[in-house]
Amino acid sequence: MAEILHLTDPADPRLDDFRGLTTADRRPDRPGGKGFVIAEGTVVVRRLLASAYPVRALLGVERRIGELADDLGDVDAPAYVTSAQTMADVVGFHLNRGVLAVADRAPRPAVDELLATARTLAVLEGVGDHENLGALFRNAAALGVDGVLLGDGCSDPLYRRSVRVSMGNVLRVPFTRLEPWPSGLDRLRASGFRVAALTPRADAVDLRELSAPGRVALLLGAEGPGLSDGALAAADTAVRIPMTPGVDSLNVATAGAVAFYELAGRSR
Amino acid sequence: MAEILHLTDPADPRLDDFRGLTTADRRPDRPGGKGFVIAEGTVVVRRLLASAYPVRALLGVERRIGELADDLGDVDAPAYVTSAQTMADVVGFHLNRGVLAVADRAPRPAVDELLATARTLAVLEGVGDHENLGALFRNAAALGVDGVLLGDGCSDPLYRRSVRVSMGNVLRVPFTRLEPWPSGLDRLRASGFRVAALTPRADAVDLRELSAPGRVALLLGAEGPGLSDGALAAADTAVRIPMTPGVDSLNVATAGAVAFYELAGRSR
Repeated sequence: MAEILHLTDPADPRLDDFRGLTTADRRPDRPGGKGFVIAEGTVVVRRLLASAYPVRALLGVERRIGELADDLGDVDAPAYVTSAQTMADVVGFHLNRGVLAVADRAPRPAVDELLATARTLAVLEGVGDHENLGALFRNAAALGVDGVLLGDGCSDPLYRRSVRVSMGNVLRVPFTRLEPWPSGLDRLRASGFRVAALTPRADAVDLRELSAPGRVALLLGAEGPGLSDGALAAADTAVRIPMTPGVDSLNVATAGAVAFYELAGRSR
Repeated sequence: MAEILHLTDPADPRLDDFRGLTTADRRPDRPGGKGFVIAEGTVVVRRLLASAYPVRALLGVERRIGELADDLGDVDAPAYVTSAQTMADVVGFHLNRGVLAVADRAPRPAVDELLATARTLAVLEGVGDHENLGALFRNAAALGVDGVLLGDGCSDPLYRRSVRVSMGNVLRVPFTRLEPWPSGLDRLRASGFRVAALTPRADAVDLRELSAPGRVALLLGAEGPGLSDGALAAADTAVRIPMTPGVDSLNVATAGAVAFYELAGRSR
């Protein structure tokens, strides 16, 4: 059971994990252990508490910590209750959501572990935008994707903004790096996955015509540049979402959602 | 042909349409003609130039105005070229995209006009978030929606941020208000539309099972509260996107994209 402690001094060293959040957020991968996983708001904090990430502490106003009472039973970390002002002083800005949790990172699963159990995978290349990345995880979680593999050029799914935009689903959908890129895609094929690249190219097959009753890895590239030639060449097939002529392509997370939906409808 | 004029004085009254953009942006609907349509960046400016909105003027740095040269042939409005700094002084912030165009609003089409020709319509209720609204128009344009009807509680699609997020597609997909709400939905039915409400409710029909070979109006509500009881009751049928249990619903624009995609795949 989490110990609930009322703190009033913004300088209290027990609050150091939460200090200057905007600064730490800009360098989530820097060495030295500052790359915490940070959850904001009751929904996402709940998801963090339910995850495998080792929770270090919670910080929130009384009302929000109260809302989480039922979730704190198995949590072996302190929950610090402060005023909204003290919380703002520590964090560096006023946080509407009123509650935060911080966890240590955890080792990523091995690629083989994901390949062993997944039926549908999303494989991302060049998705550097934190909001798009978070939205992709949200859509993946909702629409039956079992795991995410990160190719070259992707940002960190555990970056604070990605965690928030994903509604905490980066903490739920397993992910890991796929290396080397793009030749690592061969491992998917060897595990029985059909690798389908999503592209707006006119010579790609209509997504609806994709005949893939088995395991599928859907390859998605960044909005704008799209997939690299190497990634396209490494795929088994290229599929496209039929679109009105003259309209720019969809946002990558939206295109992902449409494709995940289509794949989820395949007969099992 | 647009007259190209080089201006250097940020106080030049010819630049008044572009002045203090962030302020005007907060009150796009206030009376007195300040509710201009504002396009930012070459892609969206091009779409404005191709639309029925009467363009008043363009403002941009030399390079961006130059990129638009081919589009300015039929434009009966001045194009002001300034330095990036002068532009920032006028607009009130530094504009990365380097070019703006301002147009007057135009009368909205009549509901009957939209109903006469559309096969697929999106009908929105309570979509007050400007980014979601813009994204819905982008997705509608890409995925074959012929028009958008705005029920109660929607924000203004011509708000600057919505124009931008839509990639200018609010200037391309016709839209108008549907009043009174929700009883105005009866007019759709009278025109031969099947009104399908998209909802996460468990008793709704799987979107894939929607048998609707003819005209369909897809009713979408705000994320969070969803559709009002009145709107749900006024629909002919309720459909849902099958989702992983325990995952929150999709973003409204994403859910719209999935449903538009499904509807676009119906046999004609």
